[in-house]
Amino acid sequence: MDLQSYTEDLARRARTASRLLAVVASERKNRWLSRSAQALEDRTAAIVEANAHDLAAATEAGLTAASIDRLRLTPPRIHAMAEGLREMVRLPDPVGQVLESSVRPNGLKISKVGVPLGVIFFIYESRPNVTVDAAGLCVKSGNAIILRGGKEAMHSNTVLHKILQECLRAEELPVDAVQLVTTTDRAAVGHLLRLPQYIDLAIPRGGEGLIRRVAEEARMPVLKHYMGNCHVYVDRAANLDMAERIIINAKCQRPGVCNAAESLLIHGDVAATFLPRAAQALRAQGVEMRGCAASRTIVPDMKPASEEDFAAEYLDLILSVKVVRDLDEAMAHIARYGSQHTDCIVTDDPSAAARFTATVDSAAVMVNASTRFNDGFELGLGAEIGISTDKFHARGPCGLKELCSYKFIVLGDGQVRA
Amino acid sequence: MDLQSYTEDLARRARTASRLLAVVASERKNRWLSRSAQALEDRTAAIVEANAHDLAAATEAGLTAASIDRLRLTPPRIHAMAEGLREMVRLPDPVGQVLESSVRPNGLKISKVGVPLGVIFFIYESRPNVTVDAAGLCVKSGNAIILRGGKEAMHSNTVLHKILQECLRAEELPVDAVQLVTTTDRAAVGHLLRLPQYIDLAIPRGGEGLIRRVAEEARMPVLKHYMGNCHVYVDRAANLDMAERIIINAKCQRPGVCNAAESLLIHGDVAATFLPRAAQALRAQGVEMRGCAASRTIVPDMKPASEEDFAAEYLDLILSVKVVRDLDEAMAHIARYGSQHTDCIVTDDPSAAARFTATVDSAAVMVNASTRFNDGFELGLGAEIGISTDKFHARGPCGLKELCSYKFIVLGDGQVRA
Repeated sequence: MDLQSYTEDLARRARTASRLLAVVASERKNRWLSRSAQALEDRTAAIVEANAHDLAAATEAGLTAASIDRLRLTPPRIHAMAEGLREMVRLPDPVGQVLESSVRPNGLKISKVGVPLGVIFFIYESRPNVTVDAAGLCVKSGNAIILRGGKEAMHSNTVLHKILQECLRAEELPVDAVQLVTTTDRAAVGHLLRLPQYIDLAIPRGGEGLIRRVAEEARMPVLKHYMGNCHVYVDRAANLDMAERIIINAKCQRPGVCNAAESLLIHGDVAATFLPRAAQALRAQGVEMRGCAASRTIVPDMKPASEEDFAAEYLDLILSVKVVRDLDEAMAHIARYGSQHTDCIVTDDPSAAARFTATVDSAAVMVNASTRFNDGFELGLGAEIGISTDKFHARGPCGLKELCSYKFIVLGDGQVRA
Repeated sequence: MDLQSYTEDLARRARTASRLLAVVASERKNRWLSRSAQALEDRTAAIVEANAHDLAAATEAGLTAASIDRLRLTPPRIHAMAEGLREMVRLPDPVGQVLESSVRPNGLKISKVGVPLGVIFFIYESRPNVTVDAAGLCVKSGNAIILRGGKEAMHSNTVLHKILQECLRAEELPVDAVQLVTTTDRAAVGHLLRLPQYIDLAIPRGGEGLIRRVAEEARMPVLKHYMGNCHVYVDRAANLDMAERIIINAKCQRPGVCNAAESLLIHGDVAATFLPRAAQALRAQGVEMRGCAASRTIVPDMKPASEEDFAAEYLDLILSVKVVRDLDEAMAHIARYGSQHTDCIVTDDPSAAARFTATVDSAAVMVNASTRFNDGFELGLGAEIGISTDKFHARGPCGLKELCSYKFIVLGDGQVRA
């Protein structure tokens, strides 16, 4: 079968499965999640063995130690995947959920009810545990999923996919609800992205290059997850102990993720007090600081920050620093250089906090809390399939509900329009 | 100024205005709506005069009488536009609305709050009253709008836009919040569609050709409003008097709109009883029926229906007719030929109604009510900027709320992640 026929067939089968899955009761989807969790644990040895093939190939190909570690599946990691599915059992099913309802003057009963989007095409790199997470989220929300993992994880993904499909079959659910693209030919992705008649949403998860390529080629909507250039602004009225704790956590707790802070803004009135102690604490954590001219008069041994520094998502132990005149300059800086991802103000002044939260147009705006809290679990959404940097459809962490659309159900007793 | 500089400048100014408008209090936006309503009425003579230029050109260009009527602005129509704006004053402001809120175990207070999308590019044909409706909806929802009307309405749109901008200035709101593309060069649309950095959403409103062209060229999301091939299914358990009333209303009350019925499906058990009386009633309204073989054994003088007929959106007094074995065949037919717009079941059987509403994946699913009720006003959303045939972001009628996104506001007292 050629690539075009292969991908069309795959996508068409996903569409058919999605129609069946859309009307399956929550209990059956939950039974599948529980059964899959158990099956993953029962088959730990087989998973570890398949994963060993990927690890051997990765070592041979000279992947970095960090990449190889991300690829590795161990019994505790397999247990964690299973637990992730068990957590999903406990989350409310968004399908059929009544989002709004009203009775019109003419007696029509209107309800707006959650429905699955349909078919999700999920393109991701490396970590094989994402295979299980994504399939779990999609099936629980009534969507069929087409998985396209990295070729470096193909053996691992193949065995995980096989287990998930066996459990679909055992629960008499459509097996095509979870499909894996088994060719490593990159052209398969291009073919699938041109099938909006079968695929409702593409979700690329990986580096910026992958996301841009998918966004450009896709003929269906794309849930984009671009960079996070996140700011912590220390206001004149900040509690400076708290500010220090927050910037240390936001920058250092996990510097390689999108909700880590990349830039520190400090009100001029507190810069001379705060900056020396912050610099000391940050350096103790190995952070390199790059500052504006004003900040370098206070901490002279800081490197100068360029325009590029203020725009950068370092994903590393580097931090740009700027002293600002006031709240307005801080917000203007964030509007100019920020990425509308996550921004924080540290202040004890309620009016400054209110202006900041109303004005800063980011997916998450924090007052006196670390930027690291912009995350599906931390915000109470449960597991997430990604963090959207778009404003359309879903913004910020995307969980079960964000994998759904809605329809209007209108109940009448013979009403017609005048 | 060349076209590229002109469009970039326009879009950049819209972005700036949108940032200012996003934080304007509801009362000020409402004052602008009221002032604009009054100004439109006060300037009725000037509007009618400008409109006369468009009407003269349209007559000279040989436009159809229907097109010329759509273009015409009369004092009652101007009053209706003003009343439309006054209605919007009464609608709740979606900006700042708390959509969800929770307190996390660590004490973080999370709220999900409505925010404007930003800048809307609205491309529409003919009817100049849409200029005022769209501007009103966008400003009320905190969005800047770039209006691109048809060249046949340019004089009318120019004076309407001028009035709206004067009122923005009088209320000290950013005048660039409502801009009109003043060139009739079609290339301007193409330029604007390639500016996702300034424009958040494109809304084409017009024929299918316009929508497809915009969807293909746009580099930002597009709110699409494709065809409606709407069905009325008369179940075995239908009240046949009600069924007749509903199909007559759905087909004939306004045949040229997207929520008019295009296809009648009838359960085999009631076809022999229902079809003759329905045919008589429909023909009395001037409806041409095109039927399947089974229906033509009951009403022999019906034209035969082709595959194209079952897929057609006639927008005219024509109706395709099919006798189905049962509810499942009706739903399979709708899944195959329908457009996921609006579909109706007429039945007194609650379990048939429940299966139909759960299974039929359309923006609006009606039980015992005319398809014509799929409309922003009728469903209680207030004025609408369009009816989305997408599942992403918004589905069905799009009002103020659908012109908004949201952000998470997180209030802490120094929380950091462990």
